[in-house]
Amino acid sequence: MVKADEITVLLRRAPLFCDISAQTLEAISRKAQMVSYASGERLFSSGDSPDYLHVLIEGPVKLVVEQFDGRESIIELLQPVDSFLMAAVLTAKPYLMTAEAIGPVRVLLIPGELLRRLVGSDPHLALIMLASMGNQYRQLVRHIKDLRLRTAAQRLGVYLLQLAERERGGDRVRLPFVKKLIAARLNVTPESLSRAIGELRQAGVEIHDDEVHLRDIEQLRRFCHVDHILDQLDEDLFVLSER
Amino acid sequence: MVKADEITVLLRRAPLFCDISAQTLEAISRKAQMVSYASGERLFSSGDSPDYLHVLIEGPVKLVVEQFDGRESIIELLQPVDSFLMAAVLTAKPYLMTAEAIGPVRVLLIPGELLRRLVGSDPHLALIMLASMGNQYRQLVRHIKDLRLRTAAQRLGVYLLQLAERERGGDRVRLPFVKKLIAARLNVTPESLSRAIGELRQAGVEIHDDEVHLRDIEQLRRFCHVDHILDQLDEDLFVLSER
Repeated sequence: MVKADEITVLLRRAPLFCDISAQTLEAISRKAQMVSYASGERLFSSGDSPDYLHVLIEGPVKLVVEQFDGRESIIELLQPVDSFLMAAVLTAKPYLMTAEAIGPVRVLLIPGELLRRLVGSDPHLALIMLASMGNQYRQLVRHIKDLRLRTAAQRLGVYLLQLAERERGGDRVRLPFVKKLIAARLNVTPESLSRAIGELRQAGVEIHDDEVHLRDIEQLRRFCHVDHILDQLDEDLFVLSER
Repeated sequence: MVKADEITVLLRRAPLFCDISAQTLEAISRKAQMVSYASGERLFSSGDSPDYLHVLIEGPVKLVVEQFDGRESIIELLQPVDSFLMAAVLTAKPYLMTAEAIGPVRVLLIPGELLRRLVGSDPHLALIMLASMGNQYRQLVRHIKDLRLRTAAQRLGVYLLQLAERERGGDRVRLPFVKKLIAARLNVTPESLSRAIGELRQAGVEIHDDEVHLRDIEQLRRFCHVDHILDQLDEDLFVLSER
């Protein structure tokens, strides 16, 4: 059993909770539970009732949409610390996606009912949740733009640029998932991913196993037609009304 | 110049504003402005600063993502009454999409700065905005699922089912846009749309010009593998914490 004050420390690391009031965070920590999953286990399935907001503390998770015939399509690959599927929790409507552990995973579960109540009493929390929802919405718009307007090589390039931006690692990044998963996330076959890796050499990208060297980030941006404004990560939850 | 009390009446028709307090609605109406656009005019371009929430009062609008080379891809076709791109307004980050009038259009502009301030002082408004953002997020998830897992004919079928549900018109609906636009919205060529229309005959769908007859809605649902829970429209802004 993880204690409430340990949970507080863990939650403060999540972008969603790093800036909320001590009182609200305490109310959340008291009711949050830590749950572990083995690789391959489902955290929940699409159609399930969204009883909890999930905050990923440890390990990797994939979010997929499923088709009747068992086919699935990876929408997102998540790493700690990240909260996910807030839209289902806040609207209290069934999950549209399935979440599956792709390694040993630890997750904090925050009761959705508590969260919805707190949003009604803590305007600052409401603003943070709105900013976060807004960012997640914008991430999906980018995802659709990638699917519709970019080639496989450009999609991979944008993905690598986002990794570099997220990890602030300069020109060297490590692939956080096996290539097969990354291919599925980018909606390309493993063969197309291999071709895309070859194509990206002309944009100065060298990939050996999971080590990536971006030798010329500006050239890669040009190759992918990255727009500095539109393609940036929206991870900051800066709430505008407080400027 | 449209008077504030006329604006109040117009705003009450929008799902987003039908249920907010009289006081908040009055504050919004006082600052809202009505603006007209001719067909082909842009309401805003991607990258613009999101100074206003747009509420579509009259006429059709397309939302597109654009590529450097002028290619565009239609993400959504909007009809009154609908508010759009709330995510940009609430996060005060540049629009990711461009909005263009595809007929004569009238739009109410609500200052984003006012809206962000009101969200901080009216918890009920915050909850409604969160529910609305959540629904819009879920609509994009469905969109991605369609793009990745459904054939052209299935995408068209789902689109027709959604029209029928929205207009509560039973088994007869009218296409609200020309076929070329609908094809672009579904991410298929006009030729593929024609083939899809042919394929849908086996699912009891008859389309003559813009008149659609869904002779067997259950059969069409099966053909498209529609899930009653996951594919429903999320237009109700029922806020859960108030149950």
